[in-house]
Amino acid sequence: MNNTEEEPKCSNEPKGPSKKELKKKQKEEQKQMKVKEMQKEQDDTEDVSKDFYGLLPMHQSQAGLNNSYTRLSDISSASHSDQQVWLRGRLHRSRVKGKLCFFVLRCQTYMVQCITEVGELISKKMVNFVAGISKESIIDVQGIIRKSPVVIESCNPSDVELHVKQVFVVSAAIPGLPLQIEDAMRREDDKSALSKVNQDTRLDNRCIDLRTPTNLAIFRIEAGVVKLFSKSLDDQGFINIMTPKLLGAASEGGANVFKVTYFNSSAYLAQSPQLYKQMAIAADFDKVYTIGAVFRAEDSNTHRHLTEFVGLDLEMAISNHYHEAVNTITSTFVEIFKGLQKEYAHEIEVVNQQYGAEPFKFLEPTLILTFKEGVKMLRDAGWEQDDFEDLSTPAEKFLGKLVKQKFDTDFYVLDKFPMAVRPFYTMPDPDDNNYSNSYDFFMRGEEIMSGAQRIHEPNFLTERAKSHGIEIAKIQPYIDSFKYGCPPHAGGGIGLERVTMLYLGLDNIRKTSLFPRDPKRLQP
Amino acid sequence: MNNTEEEPKCSNEPKGPSKKELKKKQKEEQKQMKVKEMQKEQDDTEDVSKDFYGLLPMHQSQAGLNNSYTRLSDISSASHSDQQVWLRGRLHRSRVKGKLCFFVLRCQTYMVQCITEVGELISKKMVNFVAGISKESIIDVQGIIRKSPVVIESCNPSDVELHVKQVFVVSAAIPGLPLQIEDAMRREDDKSALSKVNQDTRLDNRCIDLRTPTNLAIFRIEAGVVKLFSKSLDDQGFINIMTPKLLGAASEGGANVFKVTYFNSSAYLAQSPQLYKQMAIAADFDKVYTIGAVFRAEDSNTHRHLTEFVGLDLEMAISNHYHEAVNTITSTFVEIFKGLQKEYAHEIEVVNQQYGAEPFKFLEPTLILTFKEGVKMLRDAGWEQDDFEDLSTPAEKFLGKLVKQKFDTDFYVLDKFPMAVRPFYTMPDPDDNNYSNSYDFFMRGEEIMSGAQRIHEPNFLTERAKSHGIEIAKIQPYIDSFKYGCPPHAGGGIGLERVTMLYLGLDNIRKTSLFPRDPKRLQP
Repeated sequence: MNNTEEEPKCSNEPKGPSKKELKKKQKEEQKQMKVKEMQKEQDDTEDVSKDFYGLLPMHQSQAGLNNSYTRLSDISSASHSDQQVWLRGRLHRSRVKGKLCFFVLRCQTYMVQCITEVGELISKKMVNFVAGISKESIIDVQGIIRKSPVVIESCNPSDVELHVKQVFVVSAAIPGLPLQIEDAMRREDDKSALSKVNQDTRLDNRCIDLRTPTNLAIFRIEAGVVKLFSKSLDDQGFINIMTPKLLGAASEGGANVFKVTYFNSSAYLAQSPQLYKQMAIAADFDKVYTIGAVFRAEDSNTHRHLTEFVGLDLEMAISNHYHEAVNTITSTFVEIFKGLQKEYAHEIEVVNQQYGAEPFKFLEPTLILTFKEGVKMLRDAGWEQDDFEDLSTPAEKFLGKLVKQKFDTDFYVLDKFPMAVRPFYTMPDPDDNNYSNSYDFFMRGEEIMSGAQRIHEPNFLTERAKSHGIEIAKIQPYIDSFKYGCPPHAGGGIGLERVTMLYLGLDNIRKTSLFPRDPKRLQP
Repeated sequence: MNNTEEEPKCSNEPKGPSKKELKKKQKEEQKQMKVKEMQKEQDDTEDVSKDFYGLLPMHQSQAGLNNSYTRLSDISSASHSDQQVWLRGRLHRSRVKGKLCFFVLRCQTYMVQCITEVGELISKKMVNFVAGISKESIIDVQGIIRKSPVVIESCNPSDVELHVKQVFVVSAAIPGLPLQIEDAMRREDDKSALSKVNQDTRLDNRCIDLRTPTNLAIFRIEAGVVKLFSKSLDDQGFINIMTPKLLGAASEGGANVFKVTYFNSSAYLAQSPQLYKQMAIAADFDKVYTIGAVFRAEDSNTHRHLTEFVGLDLEMAISNHYHEAVNTITSTFVEIFKGLQKEYAHEIEVVNQQYGAEPFKFLEPTLILTFKEGVKMLRDAGWEQDDFEDLSTPAEKFLGKLVKQKFDTDFYVLDKFPMAVRPFYTMPDPDDNNYSNSYDFFMRGEEIMSGAQRIHEPNFLTERAKSHGIEIAKIQPYIDSFKYGCPPHAGGGIGLERVTMLYLGLDNIRKTSLFPRDPKRLQP
């Protein structure tokens, strides 16, 4: 019981709940949905269905629980017609029509229409109970799968319905949802008067918002990006390393860094794993990647900035040229894009149904333009851009459009950025020191990765840091790590949420961060 | 150029290094190892080898660099005898013997003996230059692979040697290493007078320390644990999620939490992804895992505590019993252990050569004891242990020994811990509320995972939090996430560095953390 998840404890905690506490708890549970339940208790003797519905006691892994549940995703009219199944899911919506109660059971991205009808074994009381279950409650339903006489367009599978025999509430939702799932699922281009849900309401109630098929799909796709990134690099001999987030000094210059109270002293949150992945190269790890939280204390309230996001970082020793790294990274991206197309086609389709983006396009091999060529394209199209000035966000977007028009790709690399706009540890171009051995990667005209060949020579690195006004003492351990020999190396850092957002053509990075953090949001 | 790795910039930075700067840099480089170099320059005209050795200019990906390097790991006498190769690696050690200079080139965990001998094309000056290269410098060596007349035990491959034709220094190490790689590589049980390297010297110079074959192997194995953990859970339908590290409130009770200055307010560093993975379950993610940094502001200076470590966390909805989660996790561990044996046998062997641990043993299926049974075993062996008292570290270790004696396993589960020693969100046992639906996993008698079925019912959760003295307002968003229906669920949190440490039988968690953080260490 140390150092893993369940450490925090209270010294004066009692020896478990007393019997009194447990009794009280059970009573309170039983009070929920009390009117119906009380009616039921009164009339149980005369209710033919009394054993077929009700509120279950709190699930504590009691002995005797042994339902075998079928996954709704596995059900089709071909395979399951006339079979009896147990399903666990959420009550998505319900309506009563005479002796009938129709309801939709939702299991993640799947939904099935269920029918409860008064009959020999089903009392009117049971139908009323079902009709009274609050939306989003977790329920266990037993019934017979029948081929549906019509296609039920709002459901998936759409060719079956469930004729219900038993319904039990496993975990009741309190009535009065802060947002309606059906509103949160509505198509972006829906012009009807039906309401949608704004971003802050979604994020304030993220636990409900995340239940929409689109959101479930987005985070499966994001997990897919991570999986494909790791797999591609594992296959190429990279080692996955874990770099510290707590640093003794603000080692990248001191701006935009969060300060932490560290016992009687201070620490700082890593703005990137940059220095640590380079140290791994100096320690002969040869090729490394790391996936983890990075922190930026930047008061930017835009569609694409977060104060905490996930970095997919990599770094590798190079033999002859930093383009070895560029080629490794572009081919990794291509593997990610292809893997998403192949393994996540269903999820991409689900997201597109709500947000309707153009499919993401890329070339093989990846298009690589020089910064100079990019500037020329901008100027030729009438945009004012200086030779050695960084690209503004609008310039990046405009260039992305020009590239799309000319080359029909949403993914390209801009190589050889001006030295003046890159960090101090960037290696200058050997032939023209106004430029550098550095590159940005773009998706749909927005930057999703920045990288470079790094300076591996400690004296020159010190010089460059000084000329950037960085206090050498603060970065001495970083500089020292190159004093005992370091292979020439290059790498880059990718913003995970941006990749997911731009691959799917979404408009806000908060849509691809599970619990986003920005200057105004630290909850939930 | 936003929000990814290379953000930090200085507004007054110059437009790249001036030509003057670059000249100065080159001069300084040339000063290194100056005596030999100056001699060389003087005598170049009469030196037959002058084009075959020297200091290379700083590697800037200059045009014309196009060596094709062979990987030392690929070389054997069978495949490469009499072939000419280029190798890049470190000068591990060297010695001169008359007209000969023997040196060992080290490429990660591989080493080859190299011979430079004065001859027709190799001058005495060249041999002297090679003999003068400082240890740990990165060098390019060209030569002919020959089958070695004897087995060179200290090398790997041990059946070949390289007859050197060219040697260039790519990145020079400054002379005077703070630790000797050969000392850092020495076997733990070596009783000779030869020195070893103490832990703090290693960690202070981690970039050099990490270059030993043992350390390179340890971190390959650790990456293997992560890969096998992810793969096992991916295959079982889990989704990899990314949970925030910055929290708006100290949501697990407030003790041992690091405070962060967050713009004009405060944030706290997550002590575990506990609350967020549960929220993902409440959001219908069904089965989730997450890999990332967790932070404990605990002033523990022991062999197994860190203030920042990597958590491998998982959580899953359960149908009938929390043992579904226990079984999922034990089978994941078994897959990890088997995968390590199969895919990392070489690395495990390398670590064992230095530290000499007993091989790790496990059973299939995994041994599961109840806490009660564990207490009985302790008492039967004469150990004093109360029924509802947590196991102390010595008690855990002693029980581990008893279990090993009786069952011959280094891996087992202790199930049904007393309610009193678990966090507020732990589900009580349905039949005896002195106990809980919770479990710890042990490796070599030390806890490496803690988990439980969680309380998914908000009223009962509130009650339990209150009885633990937790301020409800601080955890309200957590409690609220269960108000709109939540599937019963269970999970656990694994300490990555502990798993690697105990699998390999190492004695300190700092050996399995790349850049360890403890109350006294935030550097490098």
